[in-house]
Amino acid sequence: MRSMHHWLMLTAAGMLAGAAFADPAPVLRARTPIHIPDVPGFVTLKCDLHIHTVFSDGGVWPSIRAEEAWREGLDAIALTDHLEYQPHAADVATNHNRSFEIAKPAGDELDIIVIRGSEITRGMPPGHINAIFLTNSEALSTTNWHDAIQEAHAQGAFIFWNHPGWDAQQPDGVARWYPEHTELLEAGMLHGVEVVNERSYYPESHAWCAEKHLAMLSNSDIHNPIHLDYDVREGDARPMTLVFARERSADAIKEALFARRTAVLSGDRLIGAEEYLRPIVSASIEVVHGTLNVHGRDRAQAQLTNRSDIPFTLVRRGDVDGFSLPKTLTIPAGKTVLLSVQAKRETPAGRHDLLIPFEVSNALIAPDTRLHLDLPLTVTSAP
Amino acid sequence: MRSMHHWLMLTAAGMLAGAAFADPAPVLRARTPIHIPDVPGFVTLKCDLHIHTVFSDGGVWPSIRAEEAWREGLDAIALTDHLEYQPHAADVATNHNRSFEIAKPAGDELDIIVIRGSEITRGMPPGHINAIFLTNSEALSTTNWHDAIQEAHAQGAFIFWNHPGWDAQQPDGVARWYPEHTELLEAGMLHGVEVVNERSYYPESHAWCAEKHLAMLSNSDIHNPIHLDYDVREGDARPMTLVFARERSADAIKEALFARRTAVLSGDRLIGAEEYLRPIVSASIEVVHGTLNVHGRDRAQAQLTNRSDIPFTLVRRGDVDGFSLPKTLTIPAGKTVLLSVQAKRETPAGRHDLLIPFEVSNALIAPDTRLHLDLPLTVTSAP
Amino acid sequence: MRSMHHWLMLTAAGMLAGAAFADPAPVLRARTPIHIPDVPGFVTLKCDLHIHTVFSDGGVWPSIRAEEAWREGLDAIALTDHLEYQPHAADVATNHNRSFEIAKPAGDELDIIVIRGSEITRGMPPGHINAIFLTNSEALSTTNWHDAIQEAHAQGAFIFWNHPGWDAQQPDGVARWYPEHTELLEAGMLHGVEVVNERSYYPESHAWCAEKHLAMLSNSDIHNPIHLDYDVREGDARPMTLVFARERSADAIKEALFARRTAVLSGDRLIGAEEYLRPIVSASIEVVHGTLNVHGRDRAQAQLTNRSDIPFTLVRRGDVDGFSLPKTLTIPAGKTVLLSVQAKRETPAGRHDLLIPFEVSNALIAPDTRLHLDLPLTVTSAP
Amino acid sequence: MRSMHHWLMLTAAGMLAGAAFADPAPVLRARTPIHIPDVPGFVTLKCDLHIHTVFSDGGVWPSIRAEEAWREGLDAIALTDHLEYQPHAADVATNHNRSFEIAKPAGDELDIIVIRGSEITRGMPPGHINAIFLTNSEALSTTNWHDAIQEAHAQGAFIFWNHPGWDAQQPDGVARWYPEHTELLEAGMLHGVEVVNERSYYPESHAWCAEKHLAMLSNSDIHNPIHLDYDVREGDARPMTLVFARERSADAIKEALFARRTAVLSGDRLIGAEEYLRPIVSASIEVVHGTLNVHGRDRAQAQLTNRSDIPFTLVRRGDVDGFSLPKTLTIPAGKTVLLSVQAKRETPAGRHDLLIPFEVSNALIAPDTRLHLDLPLTVTSAP
Repeated sequence: MRSMHHWLMLTAAGMLAGAAFADPAPVLRARTPIHIPDVPGFVTLKCDLHIHTVFSDGGVWPSIRAEEAWREGLDAIALTDHLEYQPHAADVATNHNRSFEIAKPAGDELDIIVIRGSEITRGMPPGHINAIFLTNSEALSTTNWHDAIQEAHAQGAFIFWNHPGWDAQQPDGVARWYPEHTELLEAGMLHGVEVVNERSYYPESHAWCAEKHLAMLSNSDIHNPIHLDYDVREGDARPMTLVFARERSADAIKEALFARRTAVLSGDRLIGAEEYLRPIVSASIEVVHGTLNVHGRDRAQAQLTNRSDIPFTLVRRGDVDGFSLPKTLTIPAGKTVLLSVQAKRETPAGRHDLLIPFEVSNALIAPDTRLHLDLPLTVTSAP
Repeated sequence: MRSMHHWLMLTAAGMLAGAAFADPAPVLRARTPIHIPDVPGFVTLKCDLHIHTVFSDGGVWPSIRAEEAWREGLDAIALTDHLEYQPHAADVATNHNRSFEIAKPAGDELDIIVIRGSEITRGMPPGHINAIFLTNSEALSTTNWHDAIQEAHAQGAFIFWNHPGWDAQQPDGVARWYPEHTELLEAGMLHGVEVVNERSYYPESHAWCAEKHLAMLSNSDIHNPIHLDYDVREGDARPMTLVFARERSADAIKEALFARRTAVLSGDRLIGAEEYLRPIVSASIEVVHGTLNVHGRDRAQAQLTNRSDIPFTLVRRGDVDGFSLPKTLTIPAGKTVLLSVQAKRETPAGRHDLLIPFEVSNALIAPDTRLHLDLPLTVTSAP
Repeated sequence: MRSMHHWLMLTAAGMLAGAAFADPAPVLRARTPIHIPDVPGFVTLKCDLHIHTVFSDGGVWPSIRAEEAWREGLDAIALTDHLEYQPHAADVATNHNRSFEIAKPAGDELDIIVIRGSEITRGMPPGHINAIFLTNSEALSTTNWHDAIQEAHAQGAFIFWNHPGWDAQQPDGVARWYPEHTELLEAGMLHGVEVVNERSYYPESHAWCAEKHLAMLSNSDIHNPIHLDYDVREGDARPMTLVFARERSADAIKEALFARRTAVLSGDRLIGAEEYLRPIVSASIEVVHGTLNVHGRDRAQAQLTNRSDIPFTLVRRGDVDGFSLPKTLTIPAGKTVLLSVQAKRETPAGRHDLLIPFEVSNALIAPDTRLHLDLPLTVTSAP
Repeated sequence: MRSMHHWLMLTAAGMLAGAAFADPAPVLRARTPIHIPDVPGFVTLKCDLHIHTVFSDGGVWPSIRAEEAWREGLDAIALTDHLEYQPHAADVATNHNRSFEIAKPAGDELDIIVIRGSEITRGMPPGHINAIFLTNSEALSTTNWHDAIQEAHAQGAFIFWNHPGWDAQQPDGVARWYPEHTELLEAGMLHGVEVVNERSYYPESHAWCAEKHLAMLSNSDIHNPIHLDYDVREGDARPMTLVFARERSADAIKEALFARRTAVLSGDRLIGAEEYLRPIVSASIEVVHGTLNVHGRDRAQAQLTNRSDIPFTLVRRGDVDGFSLPKTLTIPAGKTVLLSVQAKRETPAGRHDLLIPFEVSNALIAPDTRLHLDLPLTVTSAP
């Protein structure tokens, strides 16, 4: 029996709580798990495999990288400081293994997988090349880049090409493949390429992954504290390489990378082969209310829930006889939305199984090719 | 290979996106599911069984109540306009069934269960009494409150006492039990009582639930549009009666209410019998990283994830021999936190199974009695 | 002397605060003032002149509209329920003055100006016509729309055409001017037109305002509780008609409307005559750090602050000799951003006054014509 | 003429905007100014004078500290790495001037004042002592702490005692004054003390400021990237020393510190001498609607606006004859709230000037002494 005048009482009561002179509560140290479904036979691990620290031109101490990754919900990070570029060298001693060595115990305590890597930082070609799962970064500090890559390969490293369309090396933003890359590829010394670096997507390198059997990667290349570049708490996640691994371990990540079992997550964009994207999207979007009673020419509302942390936008590819349906539908992460089904004419009595042809506008199985998704609904009409 | 000066480039790129003169995007019509685990044998339904509209002294049209409930993630609502108080009567015709009749089809379209109810609005005693699962509210419009309750009972209604400690009827905020309530109880015409109304908790009525075998209820008693009183989008949910039902249907809710299978959720507070709270809390809090290697006198970090939308705060009830542990631990809804385990002395080699005695400070199984929760951890120490 | 391990201590301390079993604090009843500069000689009033309630097809009681407007920071609202469309008529008695009569005292208590209006709701032409500053809405309840408008005019009303491009009346979304509108205009019975309704902008009606000397309006046409359609707390404001009035009063608003002293605010879009937009933008964007020392070919950073609640995006219209400057620059509401000034060559010693030619991409002084804004900076270079 | 079914159309339109496959927009690099009024004769500068970097036990490179401070809206920071504690010394060369030398040009570009400091890090007594406005930090690297402070003094430094109640040095959290501090004070080598460090308030050191004529300080002592410890974007600001300076310059800050013209801002808590707090609070809280018409025994609502970024809570100290008034009132930062004035009896005709006696519960002019604030209102009653 409360109405509008009750606000004042409430307000007064609330005030008293605020009147105490207590020390303000600190930010809670917490991890926000990222919900992306596994795919059959594999766990979906969220990895950032290109990260900098004060040991090259980054702005944070290596252990901070483990803390940031833990809080953001990642599974694994690779420390990949530049071998050839160390603007802090006057103050920070050059030792290419140190960022890994410092971050590793911090990661261990938080159950974050930390991977030793280095960025071979050269002009184009070959541009910037990351080698991860190294055993000794120091040995890659060579004059000739061929030697550095050869050494990484000898250490069993997974080797990938960074930001091939980076505007500092490709002023028009177009990624170009050079003979040097063919040479590396044929020698088995190039295993992947960044399809996304930071917030940039390179359609050219996306195409190369299928053509040349390269693993696709998506990394932050973060230099600053992560919160200066990503509004993580508001859902603005860094780009991630999704790795489909046999288990949650460094070895399993390495095996999956060499097997090219990866996909890209960058903002809302999910990029990868259909064999990985289909199970992720299918397990994410659930028809929670899909059997509808339509009386005559009524409208009814189906309901779809998105179980993942990736918002999906569906665009209809075609019509369904007898029913008006929305042209597009966005299902935000973790939410449920309505899908309106409007009978165009008197619906015949009985049960009608519909299959609504959509494509997922933010799930790319090839450059310019979106994943198709057909949603089943059942309409019943009483006689 | 980006560092701080890169911000400007990024900023310029982002700007262009904003430069277009497009119509602003509307608020998405979406439902936010509420994650609270089921209990064995029953689904946990989120219900608000005390709601007003313009048909008594509320501020919204009845169909809006279904939309609000759908968006907030509720399963069921009861429309319970006052029978005796209608400040809008000069404009809105008196018909005590109308708020239900208008809200029902709106709920049906959204798959929200809408229950017909009325608030019998009298001085204390007996105060304000809700009757829900009525078949005809009009018949309760009687001079004598005994007759109204008798009629509700004859219709098979579930009958409960609202806000027994409401300060307008109990200036000291203390809920008092009157002979009239004993009379109703003994006649089988009082089945429940609000333990929470709006944001107020009544410890007295909490105690009565066990003593007198009453169902405990927690309702919003909302009069305004819900967003004027609750910052729903920021996680400020209305109070809810959790109903443990055999299925998601109106009949099942009715059966569960008469069987007293309910609990209270109000803000962070979970209130109810241990038989319901224990499975909810146990299914909510998962030890995701609970096997720790401790070398000598090291510290190691276990990790706990809260699978529910209720934040839980654990307070340690006792010590664990040989280890320092945090006194309290808050696990926000949907997050993972660390539980630090610090060896006080050299840990003997081998495997040590610990059971950490906590109580859940925001889970109340009786007034002033909190749910105990013993968390298992395993510590291993290499020889 | 605190480092990372200190988090646990902090966390424990914070926890204890949360452990108490206090009633949750209510939403504070508060108004968020909207900061938009005044223009010379006038105060800038934020008005929503097209609003519905349960007295036609809206979802809230009229007094709620005053509360919503007060909280959102508006100065004035007009209640404009449909005269011809009352889907709630079976329950709510038809009285076209009632929504005003109920909202007015609620507005008075909150110092919100409430204006009596009605929506004359007809097919196209003339479509839907709002009349505000009526003395008696009932008298407009006529069969012939000419009579209704004539009566409004006789009462001294300000009369404007609503959503001329509404897709239910113009399926292609294009606003069309009919002979009936010419007739009204020439009879002095059409004084304004909505350039924005809800989230839709009509460039055609924008053009008419200058051509035909009509006041431009921007209104919500809100039917639901405002928070169902606008995420007000997150800065998603309803569209507003900015009225440049001699004082904050109903009479002054009426005088300003007849004098066509209005502009449109819709999302980030500010639309109006240059004479109003220039002083608003100039008073909003302040160069807070505009004297820069450039040594040789250095870069220096100017700083711009946006004093208003409207984010502005600047796009550079031309070059400044000798300096590289950003192509675009967004200044969020209430924030300060950097404007990078990079010398292209050795800057001659001395003081250089620059004027950077921008246009404001979200300030429209005519359809497709943006406001120009030249920002002054001073660069000094030591010899 | 839109009602609930219109949502679907809107939703479809919004969707299309999201369908494009554009690179996600980056976090905007922006500064959020902090609004705290100036006091007569002085500008109010927001300073954090206790900050760490990788050059002692911090987690970020010094230039990041300037960027963080700029974004958060600060005016000045002091870099105060430990002289005696350098856990990164194996990798980062020991040079106590470097954190300042690196942060200074970064601050210059952003117009942030960067001050050279060092933390003399000793057991208690004297505990940890900050010296700022040094000319050469290296010279403080001495065996005996007396020598270090003597050298700081010789360089003209402002010297203050950090976190005197730090639990690592005072297990009961109580700050204690030692003979060594008397010695420093009497030698003119101790000029201030932290009343707040991080999120802890020390009432003992608050009392010392008045007793011993010390400047009160409030600093973050930040080691991590700021966003790991403060949720800055959500309004969770670091603690600040408010410095009342003749102008915005390093010299003016130094002069003001030696003149003890400072106050403390920590969370919502404003602490300082009445001569500074009164003008800040008076300029912050504005009665925007303070002349009320009361008819008979009516209620009327005054309105108060908080012009600052500090929320204030008022608690009434006494009664006003003839009127009921709220006991407490919170005015959030930048918001307007209602102050309800309810006539207890028939108000005599005429004009009544009221003065409502409040105290500001979060403005402390001495430990346990809150600032008094009498708010003027005018009530008029027609005969």
